[in-house]
Amino acid sequence: MRVFNFAAGPAMLPLEVLDQAREELEDWQGSGMSVMEVSHRGKPFVALAAQLEALLREIASIPSGYQVLLLQGGATAQFAGVPLNLATAESTADYLNTGSWSAKAIGEAKRYCRVHVAADESASGYHTVPAPGTLALAREAAYVHYTPNETIGGVEFPYVPDTGSVPLVADMSSTLLSRPLDVARFGLIYAGAQKNIGPAGLCIVIVREDLIGHARAGTPMVLDYQAMAEDGSMLNTPPTFVWYIAALVLKWIKAQGGLAALGERNRAKAEALYQAIDGSGFYRNPVAKACRSWMNVPFTLAKPELDKGFLAEAAAAGLTNLAGHRSVGGMRASLYNAMPLAGVRALIDFMREFERRHG
Amino acid sequence: MRVFNFAAGPAMLPLEVLDQAREELEDWQGSGMSVMEVSHRGKPFVALAAQLEALLREIASIPSGYQVLLLQGGATAQFAGVPLNLATAESTADYLNTGSWSAKAIGEAKRYCRVHVAADESASGYHTVPAPGTLALAREAAYVHYTPNETIGGVEFPYVPDTGSVPLVADMSSTLLSRPLDVARFGLIYAGAQKNIGPAGLCIVIVREDLIGHARAGTPMVLDYQAMAEDGSMLNTPPTFVWYIAALVLKWIKAQGGLAALGERNRAKAEALYQAIDGSGFYRNPVAKACRSWMNVPFTLAKPELDKGFLAEAAAAGLTNLAGHRSVGGMRASLYNAMPLAGVRALIDFMREFERRHG
Repeated sequence: MRVFNFAAGPAMLPLEVLDQAREELEDWQGSGMSVMEVSHRGKPFVALAAQLEALLREIASIPSGYQVLLLQGGATAQFAGVPLNLATAESTADYLNTGSWSAKAIGEAKRYCRVHVAADESASGYHTVPAPGTLALAREAAYVHYTPNETIGGVEFPYVPDTGSVPLVADMSSTLLSRPLDVARFGLIYAGAQKNIGPAGLCIVIVREDLIGHARAGTPMVLDYQAMAEDGSMLNTPPTFVWYIAALVLKWIKAQGGLAALGERNRAKAEALYQAIDGSGFYRNPVAKACRSWMNVPFTLAKPELDKGFLAEAAAAGLTNLAGHRSVGGMRASLYNAMPLAGVRALIDFMREFERRHG
Repeated sequence: MRVFNFAAGPAMLPLEVLDQAREELEDWQGSGMSVMEVSHRGKPFVALAAQLEALLREIASIPSGYQVLLLQGGATAQFAGVPLNLATAESTADYLNTGSWSAKAIGEAKRYCRVHVAADESASGYHTVPAPGTLALAREAAYVHYTPNETIGGVEFPYVPDTGSVPLVADMSSTLLSRPLDVARFGLIYAGAQKNIGPAGLCIVIVREDLIGHARAGTPMVLDYQAMAEDGSMLNTPPTFVWYIAALVLKWIKAQGGLAALGERNRAKAEALYQAIDGSGFYRNPVAKACRSWMNVPFTLAKPELDKGFLAEAAAAGLTNLAGHRSVGGMRASLYNAMPLAGVRALIDFMREFERRHG
């Protein structure tokens, strides 16, 4: 039985994508080989890589003047890659601290440059984002880094911060390709693919061209944006199967109507679930309403002793991976692109029924 | 039609592995999810990761006192990772230069420490390896690095260099798990998986425990052996599908009789092809006989103008990816674990028939 999988990433993939991957797993494009077995330097795979980039550029409306890099090591590698490429050891970089992932990015950045925390929402328990115009930006920062969506806390910026001429850098692991985006507002966007775009093992970096070519001495080549751009992200052998699945997901996104259609659907999914939570006296979401995430909806039960039963009954009903992150507990429903509205409706129905019996 | 794929990596995988992956692609272990969709922190995947490490330890006879790390960024990332973890900026490291991959490792290492080239086979056109006992090792080197098998040149060390108490570091991308190995001779072994072990996207690092915990300041966390060891190689989200396929390949290796059986088979495959080459007046392999690779067999035709026809006819006969590396031209047949003896026999038959018609 195919389940509705609410995992925070690696996450649900479109069934159509899995169907196609299964169909051609042992014979890709009539080659007599799996796509896992073909050379990354051969014409068929080079064409796939070009298609992957072209689809990304088209779907995300990436303007000219930006490079698209397909890297390994997840967003975590870019916690180092960003300061290594965009700052010197003496530079100051602004960071907005809005949750677990911002904090990790800050911890790693401190090892490479001076970090100035321009906003810190820890006092709210990470249930807020800074109000527009309130950032205490440093003078002459190399860049401003933020995490538009915090997958653990479930908070999300409802706006793009204005940083003037200072490049804005965003860890968009959980939101890239979930709705329309004005890439030109950003100096650099990076995102692990394993939420909305594909399997784990691929990190997409979209970087304005004037920001590359400045990697400091001692930057490992696999993290050097210039070196990777020059080699079409094939400085080392790429994770070919992951790229292949990502390309299939991008085709699926296009067939869904692109980011405008997905954005509407994702908004509707999130609104339905938040309404169900707010309309009950049994479930609760702790995040300020203005900055609730469309992607990750944490919620608690009025009786925490029922958590285990909730998870077990949900799983039995085909609603899986609803446990909150181990650092915060409770529940979390991640509603990435591949989660259909029907899955959210099934979750809401289950929650109402559970509340009726246990509330 | 399933072909015999002689690609140098990504390379052929066992059909049994692809069969199983296809069978359970949409429903792994009855979960109702693809293995690509499950959380890397969930019990089923954590069990898979433990099984992957246990199989590696068992099959490669990895002694206690060694950590096994599963990293991203390919062997290329370890060209930086090795000096960042094992040397200081003031240290000297010995490198043996025996071909394209050694040279790349040397180029990257020079950015992190002092490199002393203790053997240089470039004068032979990279068709030789240094004779045992002839290495000009530096005094007090942090480590000695070599490339036991050069995939482009097709040369291979028929012995493990003796470096005394200096840790020996080996890029075994093309040989790890192709035959029995005495891991205790090495301080560190690293290997991209995409030759003998699985799809691209995984680099295995086997490192003696006394060599970890010394990463220099400014080493990206994803390259810090200690940090990765502490987190079971899950400091960042691992490429879950790649790990899964690697585990299936390891089970297949075990079912084949382990490394002793595979080593015999690989030796027989290589011997048959070299005999056919040497026995003809039409084909030629340029490598000194004592150090010919079991894994990568480059060869040239007596009439280079026939190269294109050879490749086209071979492909039509189901023998694919026989073009030599773009830097050297000619032909190359890679004979990794998943290439059956039948594939090598089919290639030899084709070569004889081609020679009969064109020789």
